[in-house]
Formats: sequence, C-alpha cells, structure tokens
Amino acid sequence: MSNPSKPNPTESTPAGSDPETTARGTALLDAAARDVEGWLDAWRGWDLLPEHLAEAGRYGVLSGGKRLRPALVLLACEACGGDRAAALPAAASIELVHCFSLVHDDLPAMDNDALRRGQPTLHVHSGEAMAILAGDLLLAQSFQILAAGDWPADMSASLVRLLADRTVAMVAGQVYDTLGGVPEDLDPTAQLTLIHRNKTGSLIQCAVAMGARVAQANEQQTAALDRFGDAIGIMFQIVDDLLDVTQSEAHIGKAVGKDAQRGHPTWPGLLGSEASLSEVQRLLAEAIEAVDTFGTAGTNLRDLAALLAVRTR
Amino acid sequence: MSNPSKPNPTESTPAGSDPETTARGTALLDAAARDVEGWLDAWRGWDLLPEHLAEAGRYGVLSGGKRLRPALVLLACEACGGDRAAALPAAASIELVHCFSLVHDDLPAMDNDALRRGQPTLHVHSGEAMAILAGDLLLAQSFQILAAGDWPADMSASLVRLLADRTVAMVAGQVYDTLGGVPEDLDPTAQLTLIHRNKTGSLIQCAVAMGARVAQANEQQTAALDRFGDAIGIMFQIVDDLLDVTQSEAHIGKAVGKDAQRGHPTWPGLLGSEASLSEVQRLLAEAIEAVDTFGTAGTNLRDLAALLAVRTR
Repeated sequence: MSNPSKPNPTESTPAGSDPETTARGTALLDAAARDVEGWLDAWRGWDLLPEHLAEAGRYGVLSGGKRLRPALVLLACEACGGDRAAALPAAASIELVHCFSLVHDDLPAMDNDALRRGQPTLHVHSGEAMAILAGDLLLAQSFQILAAGDWPADMSASLVRLLADRTVAMVAGQVYDTLGGVPEDLDPTAQLTLIHRNKTGSLIQCAVAMGARVAQANEQQTAALDRFGDAIGIMFQIVDDLLDVTQSEAHIGKAVGKDAQRGHPTWPGLLGSEASLSEVQRLLAEAIEAVDTFGTAGTNLRDLAALLAVRTR
Repeated sequence: MSNPSKPNPTESTPAGSDPETTARGTALLDAAARDVEGWLDAWRGWDLLPEHLAEAGRYGVLSGGKRLRPALVLLACEACGGDRAAALPAAASIELVHCFSLVHDDLPAMDNDALRRGQPTLHVHSGEAMAILAGDLLLAQSFQILAAGDWPADMSASLVRLLADRTVAMVAGQVYDTLGGVPEDLDPTAQLTLIHRNKTGSLIQCAVAMGARVAQANEQQTAALDRFGDAIGIMFQIVDDLLDVTQSEAHIGKAVGKDAQRGHPTWPGLLGSEASLSEVQRLLAEAIEAVDTFGTAGTNLRDLAALLAVRTR
C-alpha cells in the first residue's frame, strides 16, 4: 500500500503527539458538533411526534457525544471539494443511526448501562419501553432525513443504500460482540477485527463514504476515503478499549472496565496495552497515508485522525 | 365523499358477507403470501449475516402471518396497471417493517407476549438481546431492499420516503397505544382514531401508496388508494379489537383479551361490539367506494377489503 517515492508517514508524522495537531482536531470535532447539533435541534421532524416521544428521541440524540461520524461526513465532503452545508443532512442522518445503536445497546437486556456521556441512559430517563421505541424512531428518522434531503434522487438512493448496508453490518457486529458467533477458524486477531470492523468500523467508513457521495467524489477519492475509514474505524475501537481499562468512569462519562467483566474480547485483552498502542500508531499511519492523495485538502482529515489516536475520552 | 349518481355501496354490496367474495379475498392473500415469502426466503441479504442473526431474522419474518401489507402493495400496483413482479421488493420491504414492529412489541418491556402466530415469540425463541437486535436488523434491511431495488433512482427515493415517514408514524402510534400521551382535548373516538391511524393505519396506507408508486400511478389513482388505505387501516384495527374479545387464543395464535387487561383503549371497549361492527361496515363501504374509480381493475382490492371485514383471525 505504501509508495516508496514518499516519506514513510510513521517516520515523518509525529502521529498525534503534537499538541497543535490535537488542538486543530478538537476544533474540527467541536465545529462539526455545533453544526450537526444545530441542524438536529432545528429539524422539523420532531414536531410530528407525540411530545414524550420527541422528548425521548431528542434526549437520545442531543445529550452530547463526540459527533465523530458527522464530522467525518463533513470533512470527507470538504476534502473532495463538496459543500459542507449540503452534507449536513447526511451528517445528521448517520448520527441518528449511531445514537439509536447506543440507546438500544444500553438497554437492560443488552449492556444494561445506566450512564452515558455522564447522564442517565435513555431507559433510565424514560423507561425501557420508551427507550426501545425511541431507538426504533431514530433509525427510521435517519432514512426519513436522507429521503427528504434536497439532493438529486440518485444521490438520495445511494446514500440510503450506503447507510442501510452499513447499519446492517453494525447490527451484525453488535451480535458478534454481545452474543458471539464469530467464525472459530479465524485467528484471534482476525476475530476481533471482524467484530470491530462491523460494530464500529462500518459506520465510520460509511460516514466518509457518505461525505464523498455528497461531494460527487471520483473513484480515486472514494477509494482513498474507504481505506482511511477502514483504518480509523479499527483504530478508534482500539483506543476505546484502551480507555476502558485506563480511564475513570467520571472522566469518560460511562461505566468502565465492563468489557472485561462481560467477557467481551478487547484489544488490550488480546495484545496487551503496549502492542495495542503500537497498532494504533500503525493504523494512524495507514489512515494518513491513505488521504495523502488529497494534499492540503486532506489536512483536516489527517488532523482529526491524529486526534482520534490520542484522545482521552 | 359519496357520489349521488352511483348506487350506495352499503346497500348494493353485501359487504363481505358473500362466501365467494371471501374465498376470492383469501386466495388473493394466499397468493401474495406465497410470492413475498418466496422472495424473502430466497433473498441474498440473509447470507451477509452471522448465522444466528440470520436465523433470528428469518424466524421473525418467515414464521407465517397474513402478509396483508405485501398483498396491498401487489394489488394496488396491479390495480394501477403496474407489474406485480416489479412490486415484490417493495412488498417484502414493508413486511420487514411490520415484522420488526411485532418483534419489538412482543418484548418483555413492551407487551411481553410469549406467543405469536401460534409459535414462541422471537425473544422466547432467541433471547431478549437477540430479539432487540434482530428487530433493528429487519428495519435496516427494509431500507436496504428499497435502496437496492431494480427501479429508477427517483422511485427508490420516494419509496424510501414513504416507508420512513410511515414507520415513524407507526412508532408514534405504538407510543400512544402503549405509553399514552394522546391529546386530551380530542373526544374519545378521535383519540382512538389517532392511535390506530398511526399504529396500524400508517403502514396499511403506506402499502397501497407504495404499490401505486411502483406502478407510476397518476394523481387520481394515488388519491383514491390513499382514501382506500385510510378506511381499511382503521377497519382492520376495529376487527382486530373485536377478535381480541371474541376469539380464543388457540384460534388466532396469540394471547387474547390482553388489550383490556393492559388498559389499552379498544373499539368494542369504547363503542360496544354492535356499534364497532357497524363502523366496520361503514368503513368497508367507504373503502369500496374509494376504489370505484378503478372499475374492474379494482375488483381484487375490493375483494380483499371485504375479506378483511369478516376475517376471523
């Protein structure tokens, strides 16, 4: 995959350790959060609902969060020369899918988590029946937004296809992670990669693909972003697993150490923390190299990837 | 709504009481069930999934059922001169949404039903976590099917829009029915109509609208089918409520009498059985009159509506 005529990014890039890069990455996430939260807050879809359902849905979506997937939609779109504002409905749509998955994951029959982003989870806030229904709502709304978007019909159809396919993959990943069933003939690293490529990677890769689609990116751009999304998707999950063993509950706003308690396989559990950190650096380098083709237009994507490698929550 | 130049259908039609009409309606449902089950059984989407997730998803979808919504898609499409085979993916898609809603409704935190179509519900069969995830899967798959359909992009986009909007309405109806929140300034009949127009009517009306869309129906046809769908949607729910108080569990394959136990409002509870039956006849006449404009092309829709008025399960 690496091009011998270019410097090796693992050597030339102080992968994520540079405070200025981290600050730029943080600013990019914050800006995306402001934009997508503003869009979702103002969205008229809530007005069509029974009041308590709207309240539960908004609680599930507008109670904070990194907004990584929307940020990736917006930055991928901009990297391909597309219009940030045009990509906002797609960014909102994928965030709804992410939030639906969190609401259902937190349910008593699933992870039974009481805390998310430092606040009561939706089933604690609104009851279990409402949390199930509000999760269902958010998933349906994500397609409602894509189908009502102010874009050509063929773009609408392909965005729906991307999002639906990757949502299915995400559910499959949840099943692998929660209920097992990963093919046993795979080696342990391949098993964990399969779980996380589905559970976490699929929506992250979908986000950059949606951004590329809105920008009507060419094949080369789309392929580059696909590699970028695959690398940061797995990287994001390794960092998540590391935070689960190194950070306090108060710091990251949700219960920690539960993956191991539940017997979920994790990267530090499999490789140890040292080797997991090396894998983060390797995947970051791979991601940065993948978007090298964008030149300066890819700076924001690189900065965001670098932030994700060193994030502490 | 009625046209004085035409005979009044409540007088001219032995609304649903004619055994031949009932037999024709039953044959139409059976044929649609065969077609849509064949399509769903052969669908390649299952092959992409972890085996136990595919098994749970197929169990949730391929364990029987009236297949009313797919039948309405197919018959509405044919009434508008469209091709039945072309409408099959749309029929399959809306059936997945219906089945997702049943799987989640049956959950312990919702209706806590152990029996559906005479068989264990999915959470009894596969566990609660799998039932939540398989329900999520079926909803995502419904959009996957629509987006991958072999039709023009603008048709794909408008089918997604129809289905997403009506799925949102259905979830709102579930919330009203299960958790209350219906505006109190409405009179009791208007409250019950609001609940059921959302909970049951929205997908039934969506089915005929999707059939019309696949057939590229004109405005007059679409409007007629919209009225037809609205009338049979409410009618279907009144009959459901009546069956809940008159039929045995063994006969209809799910727990009976639970609506009243749960304090859910019902039509016989509100109007009494006699007046509920009259309302069924009134709505059937309205439905039949709505599709009068189709002439003989509307015969199958009329026969199906007549069956729905007298069905005993």
